[in-house]
Amino acid sequence: MAEKFASRRNIDFMINEVFDVASLNRFPYFEDHDEETFKMILDTALKISTEMMFPYFKEMDTNPPYWEDGKVHVYKKAIVPFLKEMGEGGWINAEKPYDIGGQQLPLTIKELAYFLFGAANYSMHVYPMLTAGAANLIYQFGSREMKDMYLPKMYSGEWQGTMALTEPDVGSSLGDLTTIAEPTDQGYYMIKGQKIFISAGNSDVVDNVIHLLIARLKDGPLGVPGISLFVVPEYRINENGGLEYNDVQCGGIEHKLGYKGSPIAQLTFGEEKNCRGWLVGDLGKGLAQMFKMMNEERINVGIGAVSKIAGAYYAALEYAQQRKQGRKPDQKDPATPMVELIEHADIKRMLLLQKAVMEGSMALAIQLSMYQDLVTVDENAEEHEMLTDFIIPMLKTYPSEMGILATSAAIQIHGGYGFCGDFPVEQYYRDIRIDPIHEGTTGIQGQDILGRKISMKNGKAFQLYINEVEKTIAEAKNYPELEKQIKALESAVQLMKDLTALLLAKKAQITNEAFLADAVLYLDFMSQIAIAWQWLKLMTAAAKALKGQASDQDKAFYQGKIYTGRYFYDYELTKIHSLAIRLSSDDKVTVEMASEYFED
Amino acid sequence: MAEKFASRRNIDFMINEVFDVASLNRFPYFEDHDEETFKMILDTALKISTEMMFPYFKEMDTNPPYWEDGKVHVYKKAIVPFLKEMGEGGWINAEKPYDIGGQQLPLTIKELAYFLFGAANYSMHVYPMLTAGAANLIYQFGSREMKDMYLPKMYSGEWQGTMALTEPDVGSSLGDLTTIAEPTDQGYYMIKGQKIFISAGNSDVVDNVIHLLIARLKDGPLGVPGISLFVVPEYRINENGGLEYNDVQCGGIEHKLGYKGSPIAQLTFGEEKNCRGWLVGDLGKGLAQMFKMMNEERINVGIGAVSKIAGAYYAALEYAQQRKQGRKPDQKDPATPMVELIEHADIKRMLLLQKAVMEGSMALAIQLSMYQDLVTVDENAEEHEMLTDFIIPMLKTYPSEMGILATSAAIQIHGGYGFCGDFPVEQYYRDIRIDPIHEGTTGIQGQDILGRKISMKNGKAFQLYINEVEKTIAEAKNYPELEKQIKALESAVQLMKDLTALLLAKKAQITNEAFLADAVLYLDFMSQIAIAWQWLKLMTAAAKALKGQASDQDKAFYQGKIYTGRYFYDYELTKIHSLAIRLSSDDKVTVEMASEYFED
Repeated sequence: MAEKFASRRNIDFMINEVFDVASLNRFPYFEDHDEETFKMILDTALKISTEMMFPYFKEMDTNPPYWEDGKVHVYKKAIVPFLKEMGEGGWINAEKPYDIGGQQLPLTIKELAYFLFGAANYSMHVYPMLTAGAANLIYQFGSREMKDMYLPKMYSGEWQGTMALTEPDVGSSLGDLTTIAEPTDQGYYMIKGQKIFISAGNSDVVDNVIHLLIARLKDGPLGVPGISLFVVPEYRINENGGLEYNDVQCGGIEHKLGYKGSPIAQLTFGEEKNCRGWLVGDLGKGLAQMFKMMNEERINVGIGAVSKIAGAYYAALEYAQQRKQGRKPDQKDPATPMVELIEHADIKRMLLLQKAVMEGSMALAIQLSMYQDLVTVDENAEEHEMLTDFIIPMLKTYPSEMGILATSAAIQIHGGYGFCGDFPVEQYYRDIRIDPIHEGTTGIQGQDILGRKISMKNGKAFQLYINEVEKTIAEAKNYPELEKQIKALESAVQLMKDLTALLLAKKAQITNEAFLADAVLYLDFMSQIAIAWQWLKLMTAAAKALKGQASDQDKAFYQGKIYTGRYFYDYELTKIHSLAIRLSSDDKVTVEMASEYFED
Repeated sequence: MAEKFASRRNIDFMINEVFDVASLNRFPYFEDHDEETFKMILDTALKISTEMMFPYFKEMDTNPPYWEDGKVHVYKKAIVPFLKEMGEGGWINAEKPYDIGGQQLPLTIKELAYFLFGAANYSMHVYPMLTAGAANLIYQFGSREMKDMYLPKMYSGEWQGTMALTEPDVGSSLGDLTTIAEPTDQGYYMIKGQKIFISAGNSDVVDNVIHLLIARLKDGPLGVPGISLFVVPEYRINENGGLEYNDVQCGGIEHKLGYKGSPIAQLTFGEEKNCRGWLVGDLGKGLAQMFKMMNEERINVGIGAVSKIAGAYYAALEYAQQRKQGRKPDQKDPATPMVELIEHADIKRMLLLQKAVMEGSMALAIQLSMYQDLVTVDENAEEHEMLTDFIIPMLKTYPSEMGILATSAAIQIHGGYGFCGDFPVEQYYRDIRIDPIHEGTTGIQGQDILGRKISMKNGKAFQLYINEVEKTIAEAKNYPELEKQIKALESAVQLMKDLTALLLAKKAQITNEAFLADAVLYLDFMSQIAIAWQWLKLMTAAAKALKGQASDQDKAFYQGKIYTGRYFYDYELTKIHSLAIRLSSDDKVTVEMASEYFED
């Protein structure tokens, strides 16, 4: 099997040459960090990925968790030491302040560590990732007492965290959820309901699972206003600090296409009327608060998708470098030796697709994380929060959806072998298919960008975003060799402005349904341009480096960026023209198609 | 699980209203057939699919074949009665002449039966499908004696047929194969070598497996001229008609992403120097002859992909009709009931994608089969053969590649449930991933159309193809309501002519490598137009029917065609514009990208 699942070298390029993450240490919060500490942390993350995670990538897929007697049994041998390391190494709360045990690490660096974990073994990585998200909700909205009770054990990896949203009949339409919370005069609520698809929702590797659960107040209002957020531990903590039964039952787990190493549990709360939950934050604000965590998880899903693309890409690259097959089209003599696959233009095209999607998305993830770090230190916090919000649907969706095609290309490069279990690519292809679904489907993301983000604060977020892209264009103009891409991005931005204005102008005359019907296509259109923006940034950094004293090996590395950028602009960004044609069309066929017309 | 995997009604529409397949009975060869016999045959095919195949769709996936003591054990309970039915019902040689036990059935009808089989259970269907292909090679190129020896048992389903091409080190580059055939003075050859990825290459449900194998003559020329075709039975037939050991060993089977019900065998020939093969056809013509079968199998792969898209589509449609979730964007009141998924425009968009890809590809398959039927009766045989050859790479590739996205959309409609094994869509998604690989990868198909088919016979095939498309446009002009699509197809044809002329003009100035570098994109471009051609045909037939005395139910059916055609033209055909931009570009980035630039 392939040995490499990510490039450490490439991460250094991103953080030092493209984004200058170390410059964050101008803020007191990050002052203890610099290139050196980043290097140490990321080296350690790579070591963990390589030694504790990747060796179990296939094993955990072929030995998935199983449910027996109400308990989920997972791949203990690998997960127990890993969770210990996650806790002891401070990987769950690394970005948090020193006073609660954090390291005040830029989120950007933590996300890159998570990228490495995800590429090595995503099914394993989700355990700490979800705990971090759940703990964050308590950290942000919980009472002092709640924080003291849960956070230390969650940060140490001893207790698992989850987000419990989906119900058997409620997926995307969260406002309709039916799990009930009934107030008592004891300061807690009695919880009753069912939740499904809960990642790491039950397992035999932790002492307790802390569910951050949304439920409807008994006799409260319908819809979103009736929903509040609760912390519902699998075992509640008694006065002596001991664990007590809390009537949270696991009724089974799902058998899935991919992402098999992680148990996705069906949970029943309060079957015996003995399940207690504690309100987190304000009554009726459950969904808004949950969306804090949801946003974090959407970023994680995007980065997780990038990491799977990376794993598949490096496997395909290694195979293409080693496997010999055929000759160049201009060489027909069968007496000449066969060439490596990587010598064929069509194989390079498929590698470039993967590399372009992966690195462009990775840059977008870093860009977004940098904005978040600036929010943390209150540097134009409102603006950076708007930029974060604006980019999230693109970062969640682009690598998730394009990841299907990127990992498919990795299979294709392997030929028939790619379809077989001896190589890792078919697993990455299966694993990544969850990403367009969980934490808000692609459809939901489309509605988010077109229905909300574009017009958020009277279009201010959109304008801030355009300013950011234009800054990159201005910077790139120092390198005349990038003229073709600069022009293409300028014209893409103009098209984006014009098309968006057109859509918003039409909005007044049509139903909301018609306005939003092609939201997914609009999201795709926007994402192509966002990735092109990042590629111009990467190309600019590479062009700068090529002007300096780079070694031959480094030159090849930087040329790789230039060529991959050229690929992206010529093969991917061009797709916006077809999308714009459709998005400008007034034929509302998907709205007008009557459901009975599907009958045959 | 879903109950419907294909639409019988839709097949009737295609064969009676769109293609008038029964008109073939103007030729003596087909004179015994008419709408009634077609109906009977297709009803029977649906019954077999429903009762003997679909019930094992999931079971065969979860209980894949296993290899033990040199033998492959398959899902006997289902496959044995199915093969018996295939033989007794004459499904393997239905299109063959009466004198060898065939039914002189139009291939078009046989292919539609195969479509039903593939949708119900592709892993099961490949057994007779491959036997039919292998038998065809013997039928076309074998000696009288050979035919008498093998065909009856193959047609009866008692013996399995295979095509044995791929070797561990030779996939797409068949000219480099290393399996050796050494002549003897006994009329046979001694075979020695290894073949892999042999579908149905070994199993415990047949008495014998007849391999149609390509090998290199010992001390013969290198490359393609050295390759000949041999029939190599697993057990050779002795003078008394008994079966004797022929030194064909199965060393194992592959564990695969999908298509799991069918064993893909690793085979060793002549390990004990006791494997005999018999030359089929002419020495040195092996690859050319094998391509006869390969063409047939490429059509079968295309149709097989369509059938998997159909299975996933009907599962998604059923789910979308039953599952309630959310409300329309213009209805925010949480007190109103939730609506069925199918009421949401974005869900309809995903259903339309599947329906458009499926029915457009199905029409292309029927179109091609009709040409083949005309070749059989010698009606402008040369022209119809050229049209067949021209369309094959598109029919092989378009549903295979778009099938990834179509089955992915079927998963997406199911939300989280789509990712789980309780629903069939994740399996269709896995099963279809083999189709862009086997029987010539997408890369090979791209080189075929751009490198060969476009300029075949001085461009005559291309011109014939354009004429066919223009005939459809002329016919459509009787229906002014199709004006938008007519104009779009006219302009697409013009773009196709212009772009192709541009590429051929550039060809003289650049290397063959540069000329072929984007062949896969060109194939995609061409395929979009081919499917648009078929959609105009379908829309024309529907427009005609809507002018008549259709019932309300029929009207809905025909409206479904009109709307799906509108979808295809607006959402899919528009992609040609982006493809044309890239295909016209002179930036040969995939050629110029040095392999070391990928290092990081």
